[in-house]
Amino acid sequence: MNVFSKFETELAVRPDDIDLYQHVHSTRYLDYVLAARFEQMEKHYGMSMPAFAARGLGWWMKTANVHFKRPLGLGDRMVVRCWIDHFTETGCRVCFEIDKLPTGKRVCDGHCDYTLVTLATGRATPLPEDVKAKYSI
Amino acid sequence: MNVFSKFETELAVRPDDIDLYQHVHSTRYLDYVLAARFEQMEKHYGMSMPAFAARGLGWWMKTANVHFKRPLGLGDRMVVRCWIDHFTETGCRVCFEIDKLPTGKRVCDGHCDYTLVTLATGRATPLPEDVKAKYSI
Amino acid sequence: MNVFSKFETELAVRPDDIDLYQHVHSTRYLDYVLAARFEQMEKHYGMSMPAFAARGLGWWMKTANVHFKRPLGLGDRMVVRCWIDHFTETGCRVCFEIDKLPTGKRVCDGHCDYTLVTLATGRATPLPEDVKAKYSI
Amino acid sequence: MNVFSKFETELAVRPDDIDLYQHVHSTRYLDYVLAARFEQMEKHYGMSMPAFAARGLGWWMKTANVHFKRPLGLGDRMVVRCWIDHFTETGCRVCFEIDKLPTGKRVCDGHCDYTLVTLATGRATPLPEDVKAKYSI
Repeated sequence: MNVFSKFETELAVRPDDIDLYQHVHSTRYLDYVLAARFEQMEKHYGMSMPAFAARGLGWWMKTANVHFKRPLGLGDRMVVRCWIDHFTETGCRVCFEIDKLPTGKRVCDGHCDYTLVTLATGRATPLPEDVKAKYSI
Repeated sequence: MNVFSKFETELAVRPDDIDLYQHVHSTRYLDYVLAARFEQMEKHYGMSMPAFAARGLGWWMKTANVHFKRPLGLGDRMVVRCWIDHFTETGCRVCFEIDKLPTGKRVCDGHCDYTLVTLATGRATPLPEDVKAKYSI
Repeated sequence: MNVFSKFETELAVRPDDIDLYQHVHSTRYLDYVLAARFEQMEKHYGMSMPAFAARGLGWWMKTANVHFKRPLGLGDRMVVRCWIDHFTETGCRVCFEIDKLPTGKRVCDGHCDYTLVTLATGRATPLPEDVKAKYSI
Repeated sequence: MNVFSKFETELAVRPDDIDLYQHVHSTRYLDYVLAARFEQMEKHYGMSMPAFAARGLGWWMKTANVHFKRPLGLGDRMVVRCWIDHFTETGCRVCFEIDKLPTGKRVCDGHCDYTLVTLATGRATPLPEDVKAKYSI
């Protein structure tokens, strides 16, 4: 069984993320995960979303699963930690944890399942060997 | 075992929901569920979010679970169907389905677990009897 | 001097639009205008955004000007009124008013200047005669 | 005539900011300005939005004026430069410029007029002397 690297991205809450309870709106945490993941794809895996698009490929989210522990508020900073849990024939599961800074207290965690698709058809496609190699770090 | 009513709300995609794949951004579907749910709380359950706030109570999302089937695009319309699956001592599980209109094809489904909190402390609080009665339809 | 038709679209505030003051976040009003405008382009002018895209054309916003009068809150409904003020060689000015429902009190008004661009190059392009005819109602 | 300091904040585009043209959605640039401004209020002026709220005060946007020059795309970074242009009895005009990094090319610029309000009533209130002093740097 493979164990894959965990990568971290620091982000800050934006004022338009705040909801009526003066907390980050529950749906925004997944936006933070995507922002972190996109940065990590380019910086750490060496194959960015635009690089996939240039090959006619895209990643579509199949499931999202989030457990909320404590909310972030206006001006808060966070670290978003992401890693690949496992591959399937046409996709992968990405796990994530968001911790508040500087305390390191858990904000939320969960996972997303992704399918690799051919953008022209929207159909699932087997992971190319070079993609799997780049992402198996 | 109780079976609770399913309620429906029709919504339309907003241009700012569209992502780089010309689909609704994956995190927006949960916004649609919340929009539908807020409307249904007021219209069908007779106790709106502001009515909870007036009693010092709020609903915090504890988990979100979404399964994506097919994306919505610019100008698409949908029906968002929500219902209570079960109550816990301090919360409930709300299930949802989003279907595309007019075809009725499934866009996504899933559930959210909520905890009722006292807004002043952020702590979970047992469901008041009258709240449970109003929401047990 | 031409006077162009005013068209109306009814919309509702979504919970994710609410900010820390429990009002609609100031930047969302422009999203409402775009949502209304897209609907009106399809329904009233008979040439939708996807129809422009199919001809390789897009509308880029050049300026936005908003005057805020009174905020909307959770669950509020509104009417968004839009009309063309004038055409330029490669674009047009769209004026808008948002009124709260059912009172009809003014929420905000303003205008946006748009440029028609060839999507392949991102360059401004003169308004085709048939487009100008369709939008001169 | 006073000339006030310009302050800079670096931000990155988030994937959920991207629109159907694969550019940042036009309404998000104003969100970047607010995010930068909130950071600068805390860091440079020494009186943050929560500090205003603790005194029962809030800043409401009265007008927004944006001129768009060139769009940002997925993964782009920017610098947001903000400064006070002038004070009125109950508010101020904040000017802004967003430049793309690392080129420094202009993305958009404009200004927002703000009114200081008493949160309990929503009514405009004269700028307290200590606030004006802190913000006159």
